[in-house]
Amino acid sequence: MDARRPYVRVAEIEVDPAQLDAYKEALRKQIDTALRVERGVLALHAVADKDDPALVLVFEIYADENAYRAHLETPHFNAYKAVTNEMVRSLKLRDTLPIALGAKAE
Amino acid sequence: MDARRPYVRVAEIEVDPAQLDAYKEALRKQIDTALRVERGVLALHAVADKDDPALVLVFEIYADENAYRAHLETPHFNAYKAVTNEMVRSLKLRDTLPIALGAKAE
Repeated sequence: MDARRPYVRVAEIEVDPAQLDAYKEALRKQIDTALRVERGVLALHAVADKDDPALVLVFEIYADENAYRAHLETPHFNAYKAVTNEMVRSLKLRDTLPIALGAKAE
Repeated sequence: MDARRPYVRVAEIEVDPAQLDAYKEALRKQIDTALRVERGVLALHAVADKDDPALVLVFEIYADENAYRAHLETPHFNAYKAVTNEMVRSLKLRDTLPIALGAKAE
């Protein structure tokens, strides 16, 4: 494995519908902080399935696998995990191999 | 619906394993062209599931829903659809509502 290639994960998170607003707020806060303070976090895109709004997908791009591991140790990620622990019904993490990561500069 | 908010879709594509390399090549070509020539295509991120490499996920961000509709009419998208028609075993398209779309400038 090339440790320096972008590392991409896709999370599928089933949230308790009664706590969805609070969950989204915690997720937004975590994403904002991670992008601001972590050099190796390249993108965190979170969306809700339109047909099933309590199903949240997060598409995560890190500079490399080490950047992902560092992310897991940050205070903001651990705060998010603690705050949302009782809001999440299930979590499926997909490890992936990038085919094409294309984005316009903002 | 706010027609001007980013419009995000997630495609899950099961590819014939025997044609996976050809499929990826066609997908990369389509993505490269779309990002270069379509102003409203903000990001197209394609990855393969590491545990099931013939399962391809594409995370698609358009400037708005009209940009997505325009994308479907482009020659490069239609060429991709024609070339990959016999390579794709199933296609699931998820329509989504963005929660947070965070990316660093490149």
